[in-house]
This record gives sequence, C-alpha cells and structure tokens, in this order.
Amino acid sequence: MEKTLIRLFKEPKLDNPMFIEGLPGIGHVGKLAAEHLVAELKAEKIGEVYSPSFPPQVLIKSDGTVELMKNEVFFWRGKKPQSDLLLLVGNTQGLTPEGQYDLADKILDLVEKFGVKKMFTLGGFATGKLVEEPRVFGAVTDTELAKELEKYGVVVKGEEGGGIVGASGLLLGLGKVRGMQGICLLGETSGYLVDARSAQAVLEVLTKMLGVKINMTELENRAKDTEKFISRLQEMERRALEQMPRRVPASEEDLRYIG
Amino acid sequence: MEKTLIRLFKEPKLDNPMFIEGLPGIGHVGKLAAEHLVAELKAEKIGEVYSPSFPPQVLIKSDGTVELMKNEVFFWRGKKPQSDLLLLVGNTQGLTPEGQYDLADKILDLVEKFGVKKMFTLGGFATGKLVEEPRVFGAVTDTELAKELEKYGVVVKGEEGGGIVGASGLLLGLGKVRGMQGICLLGETSGYLVDARSAQAVLEVLTKMLGVKINMTELENRAKDTEKFISRLQEMERRALEQMPRRVPASEEDLRYIG
Amino acid sequence: MEKTLIRLFKEPKLDNPMFIEGLPGIGHVGKLAAEHLVAELKAEKIGEVYSPSFPPQVLIKSDGTVELMKNEVFFWRGKKPQSDLLLLVGNTQGLTPEGQYDLADKILDLVEKFGVKKMFTLGGFATGKLVEEPRVFGAVTDTELAKELEKYGVVVKGEEGGGIVGASGLLLGLGKVRGMQGICLLGETSGYLVDARSAQAVLEVLTKMLGVKINMTELENRAKDTEKFISRLQEMERRALEQMPRRVPASEEDLRYIG
Amino acid sequence: MEKTLIRLFKEPKLDNPMFIEGLPGIGHVGKLAAEHLVAELKAEKIGEVYSPSFPPQVLIKSDGTVELMKNEVFFWRGKKPQSDLLLLVGNTQGLTPEGQYDLADKILDLVEKFGVKKMFTLGGFATGKLVEEPRVFGAVTDTELAKELEKYGVVVKGEEGGGIVGASGLLLGLGKVRGMQGICLLGETSGYLVDARSAQAVLEVLTKMLGVKINMTELENRAKDTEKFISRLQEMERRALEQMPRRVPASEEDLRYIG
Repeated sequence: MEKTLIRLFKEPKLDNPMFIEGLPGIGHVGKLAAEHLVAELKAEKIGEVYSPSFPPQVLIKSDGTVELMKNEVFFWRGKKPQSDLLLLVGNTQGLTPEGQYDLADKILDLVEKFGVKKMFTLGGFATGKLVEEPRVFGAVTDTELAKELEKYGVVVKGEEGGGIVGASGLLLGLGKVRGMQGICLLGETSGYLVDARSAQAVLEVLTKMLGVKINMTELENRAKDTEKFISRLQEMERRALEQMPRRVPASEEDLRYIG
Repeated sequence: MEKTLIRLFKEPKLDNPMFIEGLPGIGHVGKLAAEHLVAELKAEKIGEVYSPSFPPQVLIKSDGTVELMKNEVFFWRGKKPQSDLLLLVGNTQGLTPEGQYDLADKILDLVEKFGVKKMFTLGGFATGKLVEEPRVFGAVTDTELAKELEKYGVVVKGEEGGGIVGASGLLLGLGKVRGMQGICLLGETSGYLVDARSAQAVLEVLTKMLGVKINMTELENRAKDTEKFISRLQEMERRALEQMPRRVPASEEDLRYIG
Repeated sequence: MEKTLIRLFKEPKLDNPMFIEGLPGIGHVGKLAAEHLVAELKAEKIGEVYSPSFPPQVLIKSDGTVELMKNEVFFWRGKKPQSDLLLLVGNTQGLTPEGQYDLADKILDLVEKFGVKKMFTLGGFATGKLVEEPRVFGAVTDTELAKELEKYGVVVKGEEGGGIVGASGLLLGLGKVRGMQGICLLGETSGYLVDARSAQAVLEVLTKMLGVKINMTELENRAKDTEKFISRLQEMERRALEQMPRRVPASEEDLRYIG
Repeated sequence: MEKTLIRLFKEPKLDNPMFIEGLPGIGHVGKLAAEHLVAELKAEKIGEVYSPSFPPQVLIKSDGTVELMKNEVFFWRGKKPQSDLLLLVGNTQGLTPEGQYDLADKILDLVEKFGVKKMFTLGGFATGKLVEEPRVFGAVTDTELAKELEKYGVVVKGEEGGGIVGASGLLLGLGKVRGMQGICLLGETSGYLVDARSAQAVLEVLTKMLGVKINMTELENRAKDTEKFISRLQEMERRALEQMPRRVPASEEDLRYIG
C-alpha cells in the first residue's frame, strides 16, 4: 500500500449531499460530534479509507479482534430534497504533511463524485479553561457564509487571526481551490478531555443549520467510552515506551555517526 | 533502491502453508521465537527482503563481513498435508509509517502467491515486571479464532483495549482487508531484556496449535547471543553519538533559519 | 495533491524579466522586502503555488475566510526594455528537504518559461544584535556579479564561509546548474523581530540595481502587521500544544514499542 | 528535482577501475582521506551528484559564489594495467534513510557502468580517546578479503560486532547483493576533530594496497581548512537557531493540535 486507498462497498445516488467531517483532534470535539451524528441518524457505512501515512498499527477491540487505523464514510438519506448527508469519521489522521494533503485531496475527489458542493468540518478550539457554556467558533470559504454563521450565534474570528491544522483545515482550503463552499465549526474546549459539552455546542449549531433533529442523551456516554479507550491506549504506549530498550536506531540520530 | 525489494532464490510449491512472522520488537520476543523455530525445524531460506525504509547501515558479523539490514523468508515442508510453513524473520523493521505499510503489503503479496490463507504474528507485550510464568496474550482477525485461542490458555484481551504497533499488527490488519485469517501471539515480558522465557511461552502455544514439536534447550543461549549483539550495537551507537560533532545540519532545524 | 501544484491565471509575454524571490525566513526580511515591492509597484498576481510539503493547515483571515498555505507569483511591466519583473512571495516554505528541492525546481521551470535568465533572492542574516544601520550581505552565482555587488556597498562574504538555507539558497544553486545567473541579498538583522529596517536596506540596494523607485513609508506598518499576525499564530500554536493530550502516537516513538 | 541526479561531463574508458568513496562522517576521516588522494593524484572531475535528500541549502565559498550540496566523481588513470581509480567525494550525505539507499544505489549503477568490480569505502571509528597511533579497522564483503586486510595490519573486527552507518556501509552492503567486492577502512579517531592523523593511517593502508604513492605533507593543512570551514558553518547555524523565532510550525508538533 504505497498510496491512500478508498474502498467503497456501495455507491448510492445522492441528491446534492452536504459533506460533514469529524476526525480526532483537539478535545476530540470533531470526532465525537460527527460520530454521535452518525449513530443518532443511523447513517449507513459505504466505505473505508486506509493510508500509509496513518500510524503503522492496529487497534484491538473488546472482542479481541483487530482493526486497522482508518477513516470511514457514511451516508444518510434526508427527508427533504437536497438534504442527503455524506459523513467522514475515523480513528486517526495522517501523520505527515504529505499524507494530510494526499488524504484531503482523495476525500475531496470522492465526495465530488457524489455531487458534494458544500461541506462542514468539525473540530475543537483549545483555550485551556474549563467553561460551562462553550462558544462555537467558525471559519469559512466565502464571506457570505460568515454572515449566515453569525445568525446562529457562531463567533466568526475576526482580528485574532490563527489557523486550522489538519483535515478540518485542509478540506476547506483545498475544497475552496476546487470551487466548493465550506464551513468549519470549532467548539471551545479546555483541550484536556474528550469534551462532550463542546461537541454538543457544535452539534446544536450544525443540526439547526442542516434542519435535522437528534437526541443528545447518549453524547456524554460516548465521550466517556472514547475517553476510556484513549487513556488505555496512551497508558499502553507510555508503558511500552518506558520499559523498552531502543531496538532500532532512529533515522536522524543514525545520520550523525555515519562512518 | 527506491522500493522494497524481495529477492527469491527458490519458489517451492507449498500445500496451503501457514505464515509465521517474528521480527525485532518488545523484548525481542517475536524475533527470538521465530528464529528459534526456523533453526530447530531446519527451515530452508528462500528469499531476502530489502527496503529503503530500513536503517541505512550494515551490520558487521564476527568474521568481519558485512550484511545489509534485511528480513528473510524461510519455508518448512510439514509432515502432514496442509502443514507447510512459510516464515519471516529479520534484523530490523521499517523506520517510517510509509515504509511499514509498504513492507507489510509486499510481504502479503508474496505469501499470497504461495497460497497462504492464515498467519501467526509473534511479539511481546511489555508489563514492566519480571514474571516467572509469562502469560500469552492474543489478538485475532475473526471472533471464532478468539475462542480457539482460549482453549490454549491464551488471554484474548477484552475490556483493556490497546494496539499492536509494527509488522505484527499491520500484517494482521492488512491481511484481514484481503480476507486472510490471522492470530497475533504476544508474550508477556518486562521489556528490559531479550526475553527467552516469554519466547518459550509463545512457542509452546504456537507449536501446539501447529502440531509440531521442537526442542527448547537452545532458546536460552540464543537469547544470550542476541542480547550481547544488541547491547554491543547500542553501545557503539551511543559512543558514536556522544563523541561526534554534528556534521550535517538536521533537516528540521535547518528550516528554522532559512535565509 | 501528491506533487507541487502551480496554478497560473494568466501568462503575460514578458521581455527578458528579472525574477525576485522573498519568502518567510530569518527576521522575515526577504518576505517583507518582496511583499513591499509587490505592493508599491502594484504588481499583478498571475498564479499560486501549493505543495504537500507546506504545513498541513489553513490560515484564518480577519474576515473569517480561510486560505491555504501557498506561494504567489506576480509580474510587473517595466517602463524600459528588459525591465519586466516576475516576483515570488508567500506565507510559507516547504517543511522537508525533498519538498524544498521540488519547489525550487518547479519554480525555476516556471520562470524559465517566462524567459528569466537572472534572479535576485532576498533574505536575512542573523547576527543577534540590534543594529541601527544594517549591512547587506551578498552571495552570487558568478564572480563578476560579486564585483558588481560591491559597487552598491554590499558585503560579499569572503573568508567567513557559511551557507544559505531554503528557497533563497536553493533557487540560486539549482539555477546555477541550469546556467542562470543569481544574486542573493541578505539584510543584517537581530533575528528577533520582523525587521523593517533590514528589509529597507535590502530594498535600497535592490531598487538601485533594478533602476526602479518605490516609497518606503508603508514598510514599517507592514512589518508591524506581519509581526502581529505571526505572534498570534505562534501564541495559538503554543496554547494548543500545551493544552492538548497527544492524540495520535508519533511515528518515531511508535517504532520503539513494536509488538 | 524529485530524484537523485547524476551529471557526467565526461565518460572516460577505464580499465577495470577500483572505486573509492570518502564522504563526511565520523571525524571526517573518510572525506579527508579521499579528498587528499584526489588532490595529490591530480584526479580529474567527471561528474556531480545532486539529491533532494541533501540539506536544502547552498554553501558560500570564499569568493562569494555559492555551491549546491553535492557529491563529486573523479577518475585517475593508473600507471599499470587495471590500476585506474574512480573516486567519490562530497560535502554531504543524504539526510533520510530513503535518500541514503537511493544515493548508494544510483552510485553503484554509475560505477558498474565504468566496469567497477571492487571498492574501498573510507570512514572513521570513534573511540572517544585521542590516540597517537590510530589503528585502522576493516570490514569486508567476503572472508578472503579479511585475510588480505590482516596482512596490512588492519584490525578486522571479530567478536565485537557493530555496524557501519551511511554511504560507507550501504555501498558495501548493496554492492555485495550485486556481486561486487568491497572493503571498508575505518580510521580510529576520537571523533572530536577533523582527524588528519586518522586519515593518514587509512591512506597508508589504502595506498599500499593500491600500489600508489602520495605525499602526506599537505594532509594536516587540509584538515585545518576543513575544520575551520565546518566550525564556521556550525557557528552560523547555531547563531541562527538561537536568535530566530520559529517561523513555520514544525510538522510533527502541528499534528498534535489538529482542529
């Protein structure tokens, strides 16, 4: 596998679908929001994305079976015309700049084939403080979208400047070059935990804008499950790192003692 | 050499062979177990794998001759029908995520050509404690394999979660995508030493499942030889690192003082 | 996007144009000087350069819209024969050695098509001291250019040695291999700030050599705006880094606990 | 430039030439020895090697002109049959494992075209101690070469184990896979300085084995020049690093605060 690989199980015809992305990131806000949406809408999985720039490992599920690091594509048939959704969730992002660009580009190729012209990307914005009522920040491809966002109480960042790193940013930026419209919703978060409250704030804006209704009851439980899984994974990694002798010389250091 | 290169000296016809992998990793459990199996079965070498993502160096053997970093492919003709083995051992793994994915994929291409449909990957699971009787943990591609494993006393990891990094994980994960079955056996180990006891625990499960018998007497000596070799290599690396001025500017730092 | 991508909106016929490069670097001297020149000359944008070796992110502008990391190509029609300019500015450079080489090569392909035979690359030279009257240092592709430079008060570095890292260096070096002439002007700078005074010193030499006149009044304001933007970006990055748990295992560390 | 590029100015017919490599490394022993040999034999330059895995920078020579990072190929017409030499020197090695493998492979392709069947690679072996009479260590592709080496007082490393990192190792290892013979000579060195004494020890063995005579008088001066150049380059790098704010977010850190 030298390149990003997208395996589609099914190719439904969609009516002008909206594309929604939520992958691991700050406070796992985007991932949690998008996965909750997928679950509550009972969206159907139609494909998987594998990439050599994902971490070279598998995860072990509770039944002992393994799964590759991957992104997953779902679709949901809307009740009204032009309200279909195409959703991207996953357990990782690309590890290298080149991998990030390649993945974003391949994803855009895919969603364009389904007729996508507009997208929402979801993420977190870390402020380091625990807040009761997280704000939602927004960034857009076009100024008219900024005005639309403000109607929904989203803070469109003005004089502060800043940036969006990873898939949420690149999909917007590379999509804009292709003439696609996009909105990034970033939930305010401390950044320390998998943040259900921040994900809820993002989802409240998103569902209003999409005109769909979902139940938020399970969001808190999903956050706890995710939190547990992540801390176990990190604990295992930490333990392994501490206790292991270096087995292979790291590439950079090698180059300092070339014979 | 821009790509992974597999050189086959011989292409024996095999009867539905089982594939077994053991490369350097935690406690060198997988490497030690697989190399002991190769030696005791007197398996025959049929090929070598080179890769540009291996460390850019050669090892010096005791007679002063050099050998490239490589993986090696062996086969063993079983006594019963459908009991042939194809084995992968080596002195390194790929250094980059992309290299790991590429190697795992090329290895799977190779073993599929020999008719492999099922594999065992071997490794260590670091707990940081020295134990008298190391447990063997397992992960699988299919739930029915989990049940089979439990009959052999293997702990199929349940609620703990976690992951398997490197070839042992990727071969399973990428193999599953191709429809191959796989079992990963991880020997409990402190992670500090080349762990013969842990390798023996893994081999006891593996040989029972394969229906072969091997002598374990030499395992301890093999571990000591491996330990000595590794600590000499690490000592040389450490010494070289300490005493050398940096000769070439490292790429990342360079980019901070671009003119 | 697996490769550097150059999008040209327009392909004006140019009369033996001079190529001028100024990208982010030490004290942002080169970037500031080239952007000021573009603004004061009212040069016209004709293309954009995107690359998978740029940081995988977008920047958020003050109106809430996003822009990809990119380099930009401008042209300016000179008043006399053979005085047209082709200019390269941008908000980033490539992050990897391979990316740097690839970008420099693609840029040279582009400017050669417009008939460029000579170039100026602009940058900073960090001395760590704040100076009232920054010197301008020079490096060249041919010794006769060194003599020309000295007439303009440029210090052509003699016994000191040294190097030029990044686009300013590679464009000169790779251009020389193609038979193109080139001069690098490096403004003396402390390296701590976006240095308007150093950029002015560089521009004074450059405009004399080009025979153009520009107003320097806005240079200080431009430097302040750039400084503010950069410090906000850095503050956001720093904050995000501090407060975030690691979400994805870093590739190098992963490889130390391969199963 | 996406690939290693070899530019040949001249393709002399050579009579079964021996290939000799000496690039920057521990104590710069290999580089110094090979460059001294090139200078004293008045060998003729026939080509240059550029690579995108070299540092993305140019060096500034004392006359103010720039030169790309590169390796250089020389030849020397021997006085007796089958005594022609082909030599590789340079100011850098590849920065990445992939780059190192690619360069070694391309160099071997080149020298095979000239009829090379045997090679010497030169380097340093760091012990951390200053010694009056540095020993020369050897590693080989075939055991019969080890015996030959011992006649010349070279210590063929036995039970110690170890490795050779970089071009000196890879050329031997990859050459062996192609059926070429090779000897690596490593001069004992503290590793702290550009070590003329160690280079002389290596050259004394090498010239005896080749049956050529060269004057060693200038070796000490060459070492001092090299030392001065390197320390200036390092000083400039250090200064630039200390005084510069980070301008571009480093790729790895970026990925930790993906939105």
